[in-house]
Amino acid sequence: MHRNRVRLFVAALSIIFFNSVSFAETPKADPARASIEKLGTAFADAFNRGDIAAIAAMYSDDAVVLPPDSDLVQGRSAIEALWKSTRDSGMRDLAFTILEVHSSRDLAVEVGKADFKMQTADQAESPSQTVKYVVVWKRQKDGTWKLFRDIWNSMPSAPK
Amino acid sequence: MHRNRVRLFVAALSIIFFNSVSFAETPKADPARASIEKLGTAFADAFNRGDIAAIAAMYSDDAVVLPPDSDLVQGRSAIEALWKSTRDSGMRDLAFTILEVHSSRDLAVEVGKADFKMQTADQAESPSQTVKYVVVWKRQKDGTWKLFRDIWNSMPSAPK
Repeated sequence: MHRNRVRLFVAALSIIFFNSVSFAETPKADPARASIEKLGTAFADAFNRGDIAAIAAMYSDDAVVLPPDSDLVQGRSAIEALWKSTRDSGMRDLAFTILEVHSSRDLAVEVGKADFKMQTADQAESPSQTVKYVVVWKRQKDGTWKLFRDIWNSMPSAPK
Repeated sequence: MHRNRVRLFVAALSIIFFNSVSFAETPKADPARASIEKLGTAFADAFNRGDIAAIAAMYSDDAVVLPPDSDLVQGRSAIEALWKSTRDSGMRDLAFTILEVHSSRDLAVEVGKADFKMQTADQAESPSQTVKYVVVWKRQKDGTWKLFRDIWNSMPSAPK
């Protein structure tokens, strides 16, 4: 009886462990995820060193960005101007946390959170702010992934 | 000489016409577009008659909605509660304008605008408000498309 309970316990543990592993591994399994993780890091690095041309080059020719409180921003030169103006307004220390990637042939959807600080004219920095986003990536003819549609919005306001 | 000019003019017109047609036709050409247009109409109709269960059923089991000023809303029952609370808060006359649909096998991205009014307790209605959105649809095993990721944000504030 005791041995049976132990076996049952081990079996239950195995099921829990198997499910945890498969849950944890599933998001990693997407074939586009590794590329998109690298591109996210490259995007944040380029933004943080002020290389806005490098950011613009990560978008497809026909990309559309949908910032809050704005109309749609279409095409690479308009997108470059958007990110230049965002950096000029003081955004610093941009970092992405990818929550998930799902791809199907030439489209991939990434959901994540972006953290950043806003620097004021006297070089002071705001506390870290967070937005959540959905990026749809499109695989180009040369096999590389480019940002195709890019939209974000605010998290809940901090309690006052 | 005159005849050559006419030929050149006709050739130029043909090129312009061909390009106009292909530009105008491209968005319609996506194989998922007709289905997604019907689903958009069904979503708005269900919302406007208060059938929130029908809306929840249009999302995939593993859907995520990302409303502004909110954390991620995951899963069909949380999404149903979100739309119920949105309608209870007075949203009326919801209508979608699809700007584009691009699909690749089992994922499709739709970009559009949503118009709606907010009804106050005394039955007065606000002027029409507009948000822009990105919906990623996922084709299910039975071939139907379901909302998989759904995010929106505000248009520019009206001039004061």
